[in-house]
Amino acid sequence: MIIIGEKINGSIPKCGAAIAARDEEYIREMTRIQDQYGATYIDCCASVNENELETMKWMVDLIMQETDLPIALDSPDPQVLVDAMPFCGDRIGMINSVSGEGDKIDIVFPAIADTKWSVFALLSDDTGIPADVDGRMRVFHNIMKRAEEFGIAPNRMFIDPLVETLGANPDALETVCECTKRIKEEYPTIHVAGALSNISFGLPGRKYINIPFMTLCMAAGMDGAIMDPTSRDMNGVLHGTEALLGIDDFCLDYIEAYRDNLFGPLNRD
Amino acid sequence: MIIIGEKINGSIPKCGAAIAARDEEYIREMTRIQDQYGATYIDCCASVNENELETMKWMVDLIMQETDLPIALDSPDPQVLVDAMPFCGDRIGMINSVSGEGDKIDIVFPAIADTKWSVFALLSDDTGIPADVDGRMRVFHNIMKRAEEFGIAPNRMFIDPLVETLGANPDALETVCECTKRIKEEYPTIHVAGALSNISFGLPGRKYINIPFMTLCMAAGMDGAIMDPTSRDMNGVLHGTEALLGIDDFCLDYIEAYRDNLFGPLNRD
Repeated sequence: MIIIGEKINGSIPKCGAAIAARDEEYIREMTRIQDQYGATYIDCCASVNENELETMKWMVDLIMQETDLPIALDSPDPQVLVDAMPFCGDRIGMINSVSGEGDKIDIVFPAIADTKWSVFALLSDDTGIPADVDGRMRVFHNIMKRAEEFGIAPNRMFIDPLVETLGANPDALETVCECTKRIKEEYPTIHVAGALSNISFGLPGRKYINIPFMTLCMAAGMDGAIMDPTSRDMNGVLHGTEALLGIDDFCLDYIEAYRDNLFGPLNRD
Repeated sequence: MIIIGEKINGSIPKCGAAIAARDEEYIREMTRIQDQYGATYIDCCASVNENELETMKWMVDLIMQETDLPIALDSPDPQVLVDAMPFCGDRIGMINSVSGEGDKIDIVFPAIADTKWSVFALLSDDTGIPADVDGRMRVFHNIMKRAEEFGIAPNRMFIDPLVETLGANPDALETVCECTKRIKEEYPTIHVAGALSNISFGLPGRKYINIPFMTLCMAAGMDGAIMDPTSRDMNGVLHGTEALLGIDDFCLDYIEAYRDNLFGPLNRD
């Protein structure tokens, strides 16, 4: 499972305040703990109205000083994403995100075409989020056609089928799982990843929805997630699910993660 | 999900000690909390070498005084099970368990034929536990042939595909899920239930295996489990999985169980 650690995001109130105050230590600490808990990428989202690029530079510099992990540059503005790529120097990262909407692809794909950067692509377009699986697959095929034009190989692409809220859409699970299966069938080397916690928005005890949702998405073939890797229960079930699904032979990674104290009781005798 | 609460079982050391000491309050308390946490049946297993029937009577009487829930009489000895049925008076219960082994069915099925009692049947026989799905389905078909002879309707039957240890058998999940799907396809009204926690035997942090295992079994069609209903995390994920799978329309049961404080943080402001 490829984990895009979501904790450095200005839309999270505590993180937003830290960014506004230019609190270096907060960004450093969030980088270190996500690294320690096994994140594959560190997401970096400024979520500011002004000086986004400058803010992004400040954040990326701090993250780069604390970890060797790749960074997922995260912004709704494709030009900011492209302009921020040089902040990472030689370190290959991820663009988070494009979609079928507006000129996002036109701006991002040429910029990453001759690099090894990955890109996170959402299955929405100018018509919004298609309600059904067929609609999302239509967006997917359009995105893949553009990726092919620019020589972006499927294994550099992370597709987000778009996780809706279960409370508002009873088919939220089914839609994501069906999209995941079809996408993986067409492109076995592509990555499918979702922002898992969207599923439980508005419901109480959210992790009790997020956890089985993650398990069922993984069983459908999802191999990436935007999530908080420091959530020990999520992390434990992630490793447990990999063991059950045979992704983790002989439970070796599971046992190692438990020994490394990445889940389970914090204080052990 | 039909939950057979497993906490009153002499093979659990603390419970075994309480039974040996004839500690009435222990049995009463285990009955009350399992009832409170939503158990559908209260399992009653003496697990003693001597005086099993007398011990069972003492236990059943206490359970009956504390709850109106049906009791699952649990013993490896089919004659004890049949002899204990009258202890429940008019209250309809469950026999736990029969299998294709020895004369279990010959003893139990005639005794429950003209009643409304349910029966828990394990997919093993005199050859042991068949390694593969086809072998277990062979045992299943034999059991169903006998059930039909005695007029025991499928909706009175709980089939346990037999949960093996993941550490010893990497196919443990796949075997249970495949059996579950085939059984439910053949008999839509039958119940499939397993002793979930067997899956994690010998592994650390067991609940991180048990939880995703439960979710995946439920997605395959399992609608019952022998489990500890007072395990708040298991209970939460159980309700979350039902909400995701559309078993629980509009998450109503999920929200109610959360409000009833059956999962999530114990102390709430």
